[in-house]
Amino acid sequence: MSAKHVLALSGGVGGAKLAAGLAAVLPPEDLTIVVNTGDDFEHLGLTICPDIDSVTYALAGLNDTQRGWGVKDETWQAMAMLKALGEADWFNLGDRDMGMHIARSWRMREGESLSAVTARLTRELGIAHAIVPMSDAPLRTQVGTAEGWLDFQRYFVAEQCRPVATGIRFAGKAGAKPSAEFARALARDDLGAIVVCPSNPYLSVDPILAVEGVRAALEARKVPLIAVSPLVGGTALKGPLAKLLGELGQPVSNRAIADHYGDLLDHLIIDEADAADAGDLRGTGLSVTVTGTVMCDAGDRERLARVALSAARIETG
Amino acid sequence: MSAKHVLALSGGVGGAKLAAGLAAVLPPEDLTIVVNTGDDFEHLGLTICPDIDSVTYALAGLNDTQRGWGVKDETWQAMAMLKALGEADWFNLGDRDMGMHIARSWRMREGESLSAVTARLTRELGIAHAIVPMSDAPLRTQVGTAEGWLDFQRYFVAEQCRPVATGIRFAGKAGAKPSAEFARALARDDLGAIVVCPSNPYLSVDPILAVEGVRAALEARKVPLIAVSPLVGGTALKGPLAKLLGELGQPVSNRAIADHYGDLLDHLIIDEADAADAGDLRGTGLSVTVTGTVMCDAGDRERLARVALSAARIETG
Repeated sequence: MSAKHVLALSGGVGGAKLAAGLAAVLPPEDLTIVVNTGDDFEHLGLTICPDIDSVTYALAGLNDTQRGWGVKDETWQAMAMLKALGEADWFNLGDRDMGMHIARSWRMREGESLSAVTARLTRELGIAHAIVPMSDAPLRTQVGTAEGWLDFQRYFVAEQCRPVATGIRFAGKAGAKPSAEFARALARDDLGAIVVCPSNPYLSVDPILAVEGVRAALEARKVPLIAVSPLVGGTALKGPLAKLLGELGQPVSNRAIADHYGDLLDHLIIDEADAADAGDLRGTGLSVTVTGTVMCDAGDRERLARVALSAARIETG
Repeated sequence: MSAKHVLALSGGVGGAKLAAGLAAVLPPEDLTIVVNTGDDFEHLGLTICPDIDSVTYALAGLNDTQRGWGVKDETWQAMAMLKALGEADWFNLGDRDMGMHIARSWRMREGESLSAVTARLTRELGIAHAIVPMSDAPLRTQVGTAEGWLDFQRYFVAEQCRPVATGIRFAGKAGAKPSAEFARALARDDLGAIVVCPSNPYLSVDPILAVEGVRAALEARKVPLIAVSPLVGGTALKGPLAKLLGELGQPVSNRAIADHYGDLLDHLIIDEADAADAGDLRGTGLSVTVTGTVMCDAGDRERLARVALSAARIETG
């Protein structure tokens, strides 16, 4: 059996782009995309999974590339009514997106696991590749602030990342096992590579690593682990990574990211704008690729996917 | 204390028009609108209350007068996504309407009663008058057919009233008590009249009468009970009333409606297109008013409300 199966670990928007690129160059049987669910939350009685949805919309070609998140051709009428009814409007939900949350929430309330409902809903949208939650148990990212621990969406959306972060924790991680498909992918005989998509290491990848047994499984890996850095020109394209690293006393650099992953990482792909970091990374023993990592269109996504796979000597069609 | 409080009993669209007319001519403290909840159902994890919403939208001026139901300026994006996700699309829900169902469902799941959530959401929409569910307990209208008992929305929307009706029953009526505000209105010292809005007697009013103690309270009433017939020109403007009456072996006529209500009724308001029915009703001992009952605009609604109130000698401003 040739070792060609790829396990991708992804957060939201940035990671979703590379996940879509991997899905474009690999057949469904050769790819498992495991998605962070640490950002998930319950809101207005709905189970909202922002990262699963970002990956789903990207693979279905339904993502809004102009706005950068959510569904294209979106409208906001349900939210306007909810606001008129006095309900919380700090988390904006589009009407098409709302259809997703309603379907997921009611199926889960009927007893389906997050894995099962994700498999079914993505299949209905015509997605042949496996999009898999990291866990069916709730493991929730929280950010420490002067006012206490904030749930991630509270910090990220309601507070717009304004509070100074003093730490990050994952509520519910004790006993949060990998989803069955995640565990199966980790244990595959034909696993050929693990690709960490360009997502925030602290907020989007660490929750996946915090799932029970995942870090140990990755430490015991027999295949290369390749990460695509989320930094471009020394900062994050999107999201609070740079501010957060600064507040946590970490330099905002590819070296800090490499150090954060430590022995888990075999290969780091950094943006050409940060080519100077390559020298700094030389002492780490990592193998490094410098390339364009900004993904504006399908061509960019597929090219970066091929770069990541070639670093693991995975052939693509 | 002058007996001037009006208790209106309403079903959906037709009843909602007169309810809005009553609200336009009576101050909030003089009107309680009790609404049928027999049509309510759970769908896609949402609690949907079609008649409460029809009355709410009519009083808030949010009803779509062109389509005849639902919210004006409506869109259908969430439903399109739900359909793409393989979910049932036989009950069409607009995006703005969906906001209502989401708000209601999550508040009820958090422990609010249907009465409490209805009071809060209608207040948020700027409605000063009391819109009250007939009961906080689920009492569900079902229609007997050759294939068994169908839940009302299954019969009405999914089957488009096609099956021949063999009977009507109200599942859950044992133990379904009136809501607190309904009971309070029935017991008011200053109750001056009960107005049955032009709704289907079998499907929209009978469920209200099936609530525990309501029929007895109405039989013991000391105030006039006035009904506005839902028939215009010998048939119903909307809905399955005529087909249903025929299938249940009842003539489709105001006389059949008067007989159905029996001693509960003091005064029947019939449409001028059915003026000939007045003679037939003379033997019943009912007092009868013949007037235009088709409500196309606010003027029609208010005029008919005044006609109903004058039949009970209730003064309006």
